[in-house]
Amino acid sequence: MNPIITLSSDFGKQSQGIGNMEGIVYGINPDAKVIHLIHGLPAFDILSAARSMETVAFMPKGFHVCVVDPGVGTERKGIIVKAKRGDYFIGPDNGCLMTAPRFLGGIEKIVAIENEKFFVKPVSPIFHGRHVFAPAAAHLSKGIAIEKFGKELRQEECVKAPYEEAKLLNGKIEAEIIHENHFGSVHLNITHDERDNLGLTIGNTILMGLNGKKLEMPFVKTFGNVKEGKMLILKDGYGRIEIAVNMGSFVEKTGAKTGNKLIIEKA
Amino acid sequence: MNPIITLSSDFGKQSQGIGNMEGIVYGINPDAKVIHLIHGLPAFDILSAARSMETVAFMPKGFHVCVVDPGVGTERKGIIVKAKRGDYFIGPDNGCLMTAPRFLGGIEKIVAIENEKFFVKPVSPIFHGRHVFAPAAAHLSKGIAIEKFGKELRQEECVKAPYEEAKLLNGKIEAEIIHENHFGSVHLNITHDERDNLGLTIGNTILMGLNGKKLEMPFVKTFGNVKEGKMLILKDGYGRIEIAVNMGSFVEKTGAKTGNKLIIEKA
Amino acid sequence: MNPIITLSSDFGKQSQGIGNMEGIVYGINPDAKVIHLIHGLPAFDILSAARSMETVAFMPKGFHVCVVDPGVGTERKGIIVKAKRGDYFIGPDNGCLMTAPRFLGGIEKIVAIENEKFFVKPVSPIFHGRHVFAPAAAHLSKGIAIEKFGKELRQEECVKAPYEEAKLLNGKIEAEIIHENHFGSVHLNITHDERDNLGLTIGNTILMGLNGKKLEMPFVKTFGNVKEGKMLILKDGYGRIEIAVNMGSFVEKTGAKTGNKLIIEKA
Repeated sequence: MNPIITLSSDFGKQSQGIGNMEGIVYGINPDAKVIHLIHGLPAFDILSAARSMETVAFMPKGFHVCVVDPGVGTERKGIIVKAKRGDYFIGPDNGCLMTAPRFLGGIEKIVAIENEKFFVKPVSPIFHGRHVFAPAAAHLSKGIAIEKFGKELRQEECVKAPYEEAKLLNGKIEAEIIHENHFGSVHLNITHDERDNLGLTIGNTILMGLNGKKLEMPFVKTFGNVKEGKMLILKDGYGRIEIAVNMGSFVEKTGAKTGNKLIIEKA
Repeated sequence: MNPIITLSSDFGKQSQGIGNMEGIVYGINPDAKVIHLIHGLPAFDILSAARSMETVAFMPKGFHVCVVDPGVGTERKGIIVKAKRGDYFIGPDNGCLMTAPRFLGGIEKIVAIENEKFFVKPVSPIFHGRHVFAPAAAHLSKGIAIEKFGKELRQEECVKAPYEEAKLLNGKIEAEIIHENHFGSVHLNITHDERDNLGLTIGNTILMGLNGKKLEMPFVKTFGNVKEGKMLILKDGYGRIEIAVNMGSFVEKTGAKTGNKLIIEKA
Repeated sequence: MNPIITLSSDFGKQSQGIGNMEGIVYGINPDAKVIHLIHGLPAFDILSAARSMETVAFMPKGFHVCVVDPGVGTERKGIIVKAKRGDYFIGPDNGCLMTAPRFLGGIEKIVAIENEKFFVKPVSPIFHGRHVFAPAAAHLSKGIAIEKFGKELRQEECVKAPYEEAKLLNGKIEAEIIHENHFGSVHLNITHDERDNLGLTIGNTILMGLNGKKLEMPFVKTFGNVKEGKMLILKDGYGRIEIAVNMGSFVEKTGAKTGNKLIIEKA
């Protein structure tokens, strides 16, 4: 009845581009509920974009547009990725849509966006969010079948996800920072389930190597379990592992950045 | 028919957390109108949060969620505060919900959020906004009675408001800065009515002691009543007294901060 | 059925003022679809505000409120500008509403907002957005005729647009920067059509004089047509000419600012 369409981008503070996309959606499907998921993504940062798209696993099923698109107007394809839960991801073929389905049962189908019937014309060569992706989401939300948009693609034909899941090697986890949040916490390519497999439990002391520094912190349940200003590692609110500072910023304290590698082990 | 649910937080620029909460609300009550009231609250700043919640007095009645919640996942309670106008405030028991009812006829009832039937499971220990508070607002907006959520609390059992109203002492007002806005103006714990009681009127010259500095400025109606770059004091747009600089920033000019005390008197 | 009402302002990150306006709109017209077009406008910047209002030409017809209003509460008028496409612009008479109709067939009618019947009372002298402009948009969206709001004004009685269109003089274009975007690109007072008239085409090399510097760059279709870090000039996504740096910021690289003048010619 009222399908959810989420919009995400690196357009920064609420900007005309976001409003334009929302207007285009209502023009095609006035019954849609448009949610602005995140527009504060760092410019051109496909790692963060991919991570943020994963978080839709924690809300009802929907149609999710992601516009972090440095290759707009070049040969890069536009794609629709359908996840097994029933969500659709719409955006550029640059990897930003390829990790969210890991939280939604996997990828069911990928289709190239080619059918100009579903474009808003004339298509700006630099704003496919408004003329290609948001319209595709709006048409999908009205029940247009994914097959109508273009030819099916095999996953190998698409740009790879910007990160793989962390691996256990000789008792150590090699992980990567895939997102920084507003509070200066960082999120890792380790899922809650994987953490359980690795045998880490509440109360463990964790040793960490990051940019040549050695850090030590407890694995806890929530921020308030350590003193103000102290580091902690915990399950985040979106299915992954987070490193934070209670009432402070891990990023400021350590200089950690999206893309940094980490080595983690139990003390 | 279309109840208004407002969401406020210190999550910063539009972020996935905000979108997640909005999605959860629509999943429970698709007829709700979700309004993002303010998400630029300074991190962990309960003073500013409490002040911002007051501003709902200037819009239609609704269900108001506030997620400034440094104690999330600890023993701090979640509460619903019903105001006499008919608004409901939902969030952590840290004081941030306790001042808004002053603008809405007072507190009618306070209830602890305990009934897990109204939670979204599993509850993340670090994101009660999504799993406890937003769902409570959505259920309340569908007509579920406040009593269903948990046991009634007396106001004395809850954390106190982070500020009291300013007082007149020996002809001087002792006030406190309770919010800074985007333009660098500051807002005080003095209501419009109280200002009238204090006998301050348009055209008065005001003397002010702030952080050891002595300031002087006119009480005027609007910014343009003083020259560019000059300080002024006026009724703000939300029921309190504001100190500003015309076309400039009072915060930048004076270093004033939320939590600072002021002494004010007529010249 | 579900009229689109857009809200724009210089209120910065999502703030209570924006939420308040949205609430007021729903109180008057619950069927409206409120879109937050842009709230990151630089404080008091009428040039940027006017430019941003133009971008509604790329979404469906609507009722567009602009609150960049340094003169609020003074003698400045509030106005409604109706464009020939059928859009209504509502805000202060300071020029910010006068350029958008250039993209919408021109101005059809201008009316002063005088009829207090459509105000929300009491009117704050410093927040006409909530008490005058948003309510006017909501009432217009319900079908109230523009004539009911006040007396008709001739364009000459209103404050002029903050910029004219660029002119060709002796084979050179004298242009002005009218907006900086989040990525550090700048937008000029040159429309796509005018660029075509000037005979500039894809592949041309452009010489530019800006703040005493001489710049050279190609006219291309999209960012990826030049190497990372290189300057380019192109048609933007909103009907005007943009100068950018691929994967970088033109503003950072050159110090360019809204209001700066440029001289442009073909090499």
